Amino acid sequence: MIRGNAPSVSRLSWFAAALLTLLCSATTRAAEKDHLLPSWNHTPARQAIIDFVAKVTDPHSPDFVPAADRIATFDNDGTLWTEHPMYTQMAFAIDRVKTLASKHPDWKDQQPYKAVLENDLQALGESGKKGLVELILASHTDITTTDFEAVVKEWFATHRHPRFDQPYTQCTYKPMVELLAYLRANGFRTFIVSGGGIEFMRPITLDCYGIPPEQVVGTTIKTRFEMQDGKPVLMRLPEINFIDDHDGKPVGINQFIGKRPIASFGNSGGDREMLQWTSAGEGLSLKMLVFHDDAKREYAYGPANGLPDTKFGAFPQDLMEEAEQSGWVVISMKDDWETIFTFEE
Amino acid sequence: MIRGNAPSVSRLSWFAAALLTLLCSATTRAAEKDHLLPSWNHTPARQAIIDFVAKVTDPHSPDFVPAADRIATFDNDGTLWTEHPMYTQMAFAIDRVKTLASKHPDWKDQQPYKAVLENDLQALGESGKKGLVELILASHTDITTTDFEAVVKEWFATHRHPRFDQPYTQCTYKPMVELLAYLRANGFRTFIVSGGGIEFMRPITLDCYGIPPEQVVGTTIKTRFEMQDGKPVLMRLPEINFIDDHDGKPVGINQFIGKRPIASFGNSGGDREMLQWTSAGEGLSLKMLVFHDDAKREYAYGPANGLPDTKFGAFPQDLMEEAEQSGWVVISMKDDWETIFTFEE
Repeated sequence: MIRGNAPSVSRLSWFAAALLTLLCSATTRAAEKDHLLPSWNHTPARQAIIDFVAKVTDPHSPDFVPAADRIATFDNDGTLWTEHPMYTQMAFAIDRVKTLASKHPDWKDQQPYKAVLENDLQALGESGKKGLVELILASHTDITTTDFEAVVKEWFATHRHPRFDQPYTQCTYKPMVELLAYLRANGFRTFIVSGGGIEFMRPITLDCYGIPPEQVVGTTIKTRFEMQDGKPVLMRLPEINFIDDHDGKPVGINQFIGKRPIASFGNSGGDREMLQWTSAGEGLSLKMLVFHDDAKREYAYGPANGLPDTKFGAFPQDLMEEAEQSGWVVISMKDDWETIFTFEE
Repeated sequence: MIRGNAPSVSRLSWFAAALLTLLCSATTRAAEKDHLLPSWNHTPARQAIIDFVAKVTDPHSPDFVPAADRIATFDNDGTLWTEHPMYTQMAFAIDRVKTLASKHPDWKDQQPYKAVLENDLQALGESGKKGLVELILASHTDITTTDFEAVVKEWFATHRHPRFDQPYTQCTYKPMVELLAYLRANGFRTFIVSGGGIEFMRPITLDCYGIPPEQVVGTTIKTRFEMQDGKPVLMRLPEINFIDDHDGKPVGINQFIGKRPIASFGNSGGDREMLQWTSAGEGLSLKMLVFHDDAKREYAYGPANGLPDTKFGAFPQDLMEEAEQSGWVVISMKDDWETIFTFEE
């Protein structure tokens, strides 16, 4: 290198070459990341996911998390698939009640069965989750677990969403399905933690989301081991065992998983405690809420930000405030998702 | 090749070479299998494991099982580690009661606490599992899950088996630890399904057995989500949630795992229904019971085959008969295990 005050040509060339290499490398890394999560618009929500994953997977980062502890939990209804005009499991329960009604003549005078048999959707909506539980106890029980699984599979194979005219198993949110795959590609284990019935979800979560039965946490009814015709069966009993919703979600996470998540995703008041639980971990964590503000492509409901209140997946105002204060990312379906549904691909 | 009636030299050579290759290959395969499960004597029990794994992992076998469905469930006490002179969790509960006794002056006149404080092991033995549950409710609760985990870890780090003078975490059965690793190396997911407390086992199962918390199924107490000093905690309540024993094991398996095992391992009457449940699957399955017949190296108890009865891990006569009729393999610790304990390595 030639000494002197003015930078030499060779020194400038070296510097230019180094700068160009750095720029190309950064551009390549950015370009590689451009292909991630293709159904997400390039907004802060998408970037929050990418930045989080980069930190917890980088062994040189102070936020590094060993793969065994990369636990991500997802609500289902309203977070991974649509929950309007009602919970999918409510639609299933309605069909079951209609199928079983001939064996229960008293149902035509008793709520919520009366509402079902008369197709009174308003009364059904008013019965909300409590009504769903009652319908489940009446219509999802007194059957073996094996037979129930067959009934569920058959229902999913033969029923379609009333508005989108697609199988319910296709009414999943494509951006969230990509997110699940992206997390797993980075060593995460992905779990569902839902208020929905565990045995209603398990037959379809592997195909819909890549989540196997042993990674589904949900509401359970009591079962009993019995011998029938010399063969062991498990009978589903008309008694709720555990409701995996609201403050039940951390309870269910602790019981089924035994590890605190580092990433949790929900969409309503029923996910608040799960996100609080994840936030209370010592290291970096990601908490996101899917906000339904896209009436055109899906549904828009609140009541945060003045959208219509709903019995299915209500997002209260104080949840929005808590999200802002706590650093939880609120995903706008309208602004952050380029594509909504899996069936659109 | 030279034609003619007498086999030619070259034809014989070819045949001899082919035969030699086959023999070498078979010998190599056998030799490879010789190294498997080194703490097991080469008896039918060991062979049953190897044959089973070979069949369910061979894509050309009619017994082939896809890896996702290779679920193996293991009892813990008496199957994976020693349960004498008492369940390890009982020893822990005794220590906890002694530690907490100063806060409970009424315990010195009330069973089973009185038996604990007076070191009356006979009375404790008579209280069996029911007594253990009572001691647990009294001594494992009114504490957060996080604090309890710390208490359990500290206890395991500082306590040793009274006879073998080794940490309890080393009083695991080496042949079973090898079996767990062997199954996992062949695509199995290994779960514990135990009557023991889930939060007593989870802090140590990864180190002891390679089984992470989310693959531990056990007895649970109720927990409640609360805020303490503005931080979310889960309080352990003095109320049993679910006992994962006897006919509870298939219930627990269905609830936590959602798949029927294809291999199950136990040691006592409390595992009968789990093995029946596994047997009821459509394909090939492996069911094994560890039989304690080695008073010299471990403990010998029955009452099957005339060995002393016990409150901890009883093996009734009809269990032995059912095993024989149903094709469940009974492992003789005395005859089938070359080494008993992990601490012997």
